[in-house]
Amino acid sequence: MTQKDSIPRAAQAVPELRRIRAELSRLIEPGDLLAGVAVELLGAEVLHDLITSDRVLSRRQGAELAASAASAGLGPRQQSLAAGLQRWRTRRDQLHGQRDIDAMARFSGGILIPEDPDWPAQLRDLGPASPVALWFRAGEGLSDRERLDRLPTFTRAAAIVGSREITDYGIRITAELTEELVQAGLCLISGGAYGVDAAAHRAALRSAAERRAESSGGHALSQPHRPTPTIAVLAGGLDRLYPAGNEGLLQEVSAAGMLLSEMAPGSAPTRHRFLQRNRLIAALGMITVVTEARWRSGAQSTAHHALTLGRPVGVVPGSVFSASSSGCHRLLKETPAQVVTDAADVLALAGGLASVEPAAHPVLPMDVAKAPGRGHPQDGLTEAQRLLYDALPVHGLSSPAKLSGVAGLPLPKVLAELSRLQRSGRARTVNGQWGRAPAARSRPGLPTPS
Amino acid sequence: MTQKDSIPRAAQAVPELRRIRAELSRLIEPGDLLAGVAVELLGAEVLHDLITSDRVLSRRQGAELAASAASAGLGPRQQSLAAGLQRWRTRRDQLHGQRDIDAMARFSGGILIPEDPDWPAQLRDLGPASPVALWFRAGEGLSDRERLDRLPTFTRAAAIVGSREITDYGIRITAELTEELVQAGLCLISGGAYGVDAAAHRAALRSAAERRAESSGGHALSQPHRPTPTIAVLAGGLDRLYPAGNEGLLQEVSAAGMLLSEMAPGSAPTRHRFLQRNRLIAALGMITVVTEARWRSGAQSTAHHALTLGRPVGVVPGSVFSASSSGCHRLLKETPAQVVTDAADVLALAGGLASVEPAAHPVLPMDVAKAPGRGHPQDGLTEAQRLLYDALPVHGLSSPAKLSGVAGLPLPKVLAELSRLQRSGRARTVNGQWGRAPAARSRPGLPTPS
Repeated sequence: MTQKDSIPRAAQAVPELRRIRAELSRLIEPGDLLAGVAVELLGAEVLHDLITSDRVLSRRQGAELAASAASAGLGPRQQSLAAGLQRWRTRRDQLHGQRDIDAMARFSGGILIPEDPDWPAQLRDLGPASPVALWFRAGEGLSDRERLDRLPTFTRAAAIVGSREITDYGIRITAELTEELVQAGLCLISGGAYGVDAAAHRAALRSAAERRAESSGGHALSQPHRPTPTIAVLAGGLDRLYPAGNEGLLQEVSAAGMLLSEMAPGSAPTRHRFLQRNRLIAALGMITVVTEARWRSGAQSTAHHALTLGRPVGVVPGSVFSASSSGCHRLLKETPAQVVTDAADVLALAGGLASVEPAAHPVLPMDVAKAPGRGHPQDGLTEAQRLLYDALPVHGLSSPAKLSGVAGLPLPKVLAELSRLQRSGRARTVNGQWGRAPAARSRPGLPTPS
Repeated sequence: MTQKDSIPRAAQAVPELRRIRAELSRLIEPGDLLAGVAVELLGAEVLHDLITSDRVLSRRQGAELAASAASAGLGPRQQSLAAGLQRWRTRRDQLHGQRDIDAMARFSGGILIPEDPDWPAQLRDLGPASPVALWFRAGEGLSDRERLDRLPTFTRAAAIVGSREITDYGIRITAELTEELVQAGLCLISGGAYGVDAAAHRAALRSAAERRAESSGGHALSQPHRPTPTIAVLAGGLDRLYPAGNEGLLQEVSAAGMLLSEMAPGSAPTRHRFLQRNRLIAALGMITVVTEARWRSGAQSTAHHALTLGRPVGVVPGSVFSASSSGCHRLLKETPAQVVTDAADVLALAGGLASVEPAAHPVLPMDVAKAPGRGHPQDGLTEAQRLLYDALPVHGLSSPAKLSGVAGLPLPKVLAELSRLQRSGRARTVNGQWGRAPAARSRPGLPTPS
């Protein structure tokens, strides 16, 4: 229990901050935007103190908080600190942060906070919806350092999600896509549910096991760092693995990869937490792929989170007579999500973001053959493509309508050729705006965007 | 044979013009852009005279032709009149236009020329690639007047195309889509090939037969005009129906609907003519739908023609493991074509263009429920949709990027909500630009665009 007489003005020692954020992760429901704004403006300690004491903010602090909340787009109701404190104080009798941290240590895990250098920078894209902390479970008998080394950078993570109900078709394409992406050195990000989530984790684990078997063979070169194959982001506390039928699978994910949750141990996976959990899956990966989804599915929510964050969304089409693909087609019809049919498509759609290591087997010969930087970027282009490539800004971005004017090409042609230039690694797109992709040779290691 | 001493300066009497164009339709290969420019600039008679005599153009006429050809985008080689005349004179010994017209009359057909009031106005969108003439076959024992009444307006015609090889999946979705569109009063436009073309015609004929059976029932109201169910556009002359295996089917299409070709009777369906034929299919319908297509397929060419003409293209997705859907997915990945999974999607994508009559059975309850004009257009909109609807120009069009600024919504949100507004009949799109859809009540009968 923290009981202080004055609001602390300077950052606490890190262990104290860790305990404070551990407690906030129990007090505050995920995605509480006012709490996010308050943490940004006042700091975690002040918010914690406000919740746990009966102090009030100064008039100036209150006005600043209201202004920050308004500029973050919160409505009048969401801006109310009084209502916020009422929410956050409902679990004020459960302030046992250190006990939770100690408990997670017994589960081969711990807590990561935004002040840690290992905090995934891509989560900052969530703004005030950023999680207060991330609980993790990984490996057994490892140090926290070794565990956190399993966190992939943004450009090595791809989310694959879908419905709980899965068909043979869904299993097959989920497994194929996941295996190829993991073989290409990417880390799968998914939930822990039955269906697509489970099929994807199984495929990732299988792919990692094959890689281990190969690299332990006589002729293999030493592998100083083995990329993490898979991460499951769960909606409840990591002390209990939900659903129970996936407990064994999630333990395997923890052993070879990682489990993450923003909820403190002992927290139940409620419906609200499932929906909010989806924003973490969308934020952690550079792309979200929906392989099979019904009309209403959590995958819809994950895809919308990804699009809101400006991340590309790939969707696997299927039979128009299959209810299990209707959610995929819905995304293709109602959102800017793009069709993907294989791993090469996923990597192309992730675009300039992917920094994929050479795979042991050349699993993506098409994509590699299409990669830029193996000659002049204009080699093999048609006249229209050359005009358009010339028109693309090297720095910054331009709209298709503007490019149409600059290149002197009709808009439908521009749209069609932009897709082709993107697929051949020459153009990049952000929120419907287009620019020239950086040459592959000049970007051996992209910095993680923050 | 026409042999004149001077180039005629005024239009000939229409029967003479009909014979001249009939002969040009044999002399000139379809899609010959220089010929199209020459017909536009000089008139069909002058071009015919140039080809059939050994006269030359005046210096001024030659310069004008070259300038017109250049401004139509023809390359230096394509602009050469000498080369053009060489091409067009290869069949100069086959000038029997009146014999061809008489022959087509024996096949329950005739020739339609751009000077006829019945000429489909939408073909003018092809510019210099417009056909020189259209040969037709329709019904039996009808007058030409009755035959030409079968030509649908632009807003009542939709093309459905695909591969020659067809799976059970392709047959099922092609048949379902076609039946529903024909029941909604649209006319199918397709080729005459095996596979998707044949499946679509069969479904359209079946649908029309059901309608006939119903309307001949005791309680049926009199139907003054029965919409044409289906039109096959062929690549060769209409005296021989190709492929032979589809002869019976194509005769049924002719009996209940219409056969069209820009080639004179006796002309073989060459590969070039097949590819050029696709532009007519794309131009005749307000939308082109690809239901099942392999990676390389004529349907790709039809879809590209439609996109170039600014017509929407709908694509039915399928299994990513089916080679028969790979061309569909290719279109979705490489072009601005849109996913459609049912007839309501097709009508929504055709957007403000469709002027569909109430069907005998309400086959599209979803679409009807979503139709605008049944209350205030802003009813049932979310806040974001209302902002966006307000931002949409009533006249003219605006880019998504501009709309994003006006509505104060992020671009991905704008793109997603524009799709929704379009699907609910509130927004229309032309070449990637967006405007407000005209209210359904204020447009009982849209004029045919020209």
